[in-house]
Amino acid sequence: MYQFSVKLRVRYAETDQMGYCYYGNYAQYYEVARVETLKSLGISYKKLEDKGVLLPVSDFTIKYILPALYDQELTIRCTFKELTDYKIKFDYQTYNEESKLLNFGSTTLVFVDKETKKPVNCPKVIKDLLINLKS
Amino acid sequence: MYQFSVKLRVRYAETDQMGYCYYGNYAQYYEVARVETLKSLGISYKKLEDKGVLLPVSDFTIKYILPALYDQELTIRCTFKELTDYKIKFDYQTYNEESKLLNFGSTTLVFVDKETKKPVNCPKVIKDLLINLKS
Amino acid sequence: MYQFSVKLRVRYAETDQMGYCYYGNYAQYYEVARVETLKSLGISYKKLEDKGVLLPVSDFTIKYILPALYDQELTIRCTFKELTDYKIKFDYQTYNEESKLLNFGSTTLVFVDKETKKPVNCPKVIKDLLINLKS
Amino acid sequence: MYQFSVKLRVRYAETDQMGYCYYGNYAQYYEVARVETLKSLGISYKKLEDKGVLLPVSDFTIKYILPALYDQELTIRCTFKELTDYKIKFDYQTYNEESKLLNFGSTTLVFVDKETKKPVNCPKVIKDLLINLKS
Repeated sequence: MYQFSVKLRVRYAETDQMGYCYYGNYAQYYEVARVETLKSLGISYKKLEDKGVLLPVSDFTIKYILPALYDQELTIRCTFKELTDYKIKFDYQTYNEESKLLNFGSTTLVFVDKETKKPVNCPKVIKDLLINLKS
Repeated sequence: MYQFSVKLRVRYAETDQMGYCYYGNYAQYYEVARVETLKSLGISYKKLEDKGVLLPVSDFTIKYILPALYDQELTIRCTFKELTDYKIKFDYQTYNEESKLLNFGSTTLVFVDKETKKPVNCPKVIKDLLINLKS
Repeated sequence: MYQFSVKLRVRYAETDQMGYCYYGNYAQYYEVARVETLKSLGISYKKLEDKGVLLPVSDFTIKYILPALYDQELTIRCTFKELTDYKIKFDYQTYNEESKLLNFGSTTLVFVDKETKKPVNCPKVIKDLLINLKS
Repeated sequence: MYQFSVKLRVRYAETDQMGYCYYGNYAQYYEVARVETLKSLGISYKKLEDKGVLLPVSDFTIKYILPALYDQELTIRCTFKELTDYKIKFDYQTYNEESKLLNFGSTTLVFVDKETKKPVNCPKVIKDLLINLKS
């Protein structure tokens, strides 16, 4: 399984009055992690969009174990799980500075044509890159 | 099952360059929906916190079917599903102005003591209110 | 001077660990206020964009007096101040439920062509509507 | 004048349907910049809060020249401008990867007691550090 990690520091704006990083922010953190994971494989999401393919999320699930706190540096580990014709799946784990697991989750994304907004096949160049990872 | 609906309009800030309401915003929308659902039952989350009980999210899952667009008025329907000693579960469905289902999901929240940060029993006054709903 | 008010409730996600509504959220609140102000005059920002005119902000200033707190219902009063060929200016005041002034500010926005991204004249239909307001 | 720069990459969540980084996000970016600027001087905002001193913003002003786009790496240069008994002022400039100035602005923050929520003098240890910078 291909894995890649990014580091992110919790911003003050991302805390809530509970003193925790708001639970809704991890959708953003996971997004940053998967974009950088693709980038590490030579795949630019920005260029994918420029070529007319969007990658909206169809499923998102997350389980929270411990909160992240202000100014902590988090490590988001992203794992490429699966590629089907229309969909791509990633798993995520968030760790704090003491390597404690704070939460884990997964997202499934769909390849969509920018104009028609209908599902399209994963571009061949990406498919080739990702399929080789698993062999 | 007790249900309550809130209406929310998609803000410009909440759109992304795909032209959709960003997938991460629904954590906020669902939160607004469950807070208003509790309020409709006479339960103030604000007062619960003032009395020393926090209600962080332990599980969040969402499935996206159709995107919400800028300036659309969404209806978030929240359903109270289950209360155990330490946890409370809600389901959600988001509809657009044409009553099309855009997404659905669920959250589980844990009753936590503000000082010790440890799970505590659901306050009796809330338990009484919620258990009566189901009978 | 034309004025219009909107009401907004502070979301949990919008609080920070200081226990205040995060100072950066007012850019969103002011945006909601000016969009609804234009709507009250029969001007849809959504349709303006569909017709190829964007309205990005060129100047934003805000002075904070008192914080807004979680679950408070705020009133944002928006005042149409000025229209020049390329720019439109609004002033804002935020009040809490006790009618205390929490903050005030202003934004200037520029009419921009969606394709060329260059400043364009304010569409005549909007100019006519707004100029009549001041007479 | 003491200056410090931080680098930030525009997240997808931070774009809007105009295809720009939403104008309201810079409040966050500036906050990250000033926190790291203080940190570079040995001043931890997190510890300041732990010791009972909050630093809310009293004034924020920003002028936008060019938009930031998705996935661009921005440089936020933060300049310590002024310290009075109760207030501290910073200026900011945001540059894109081609060193073009995208926006500039300033914030004034007030030293506030966490319990009384009233203005307090800047802690002496911070005052000593900052005053030496200017000599």
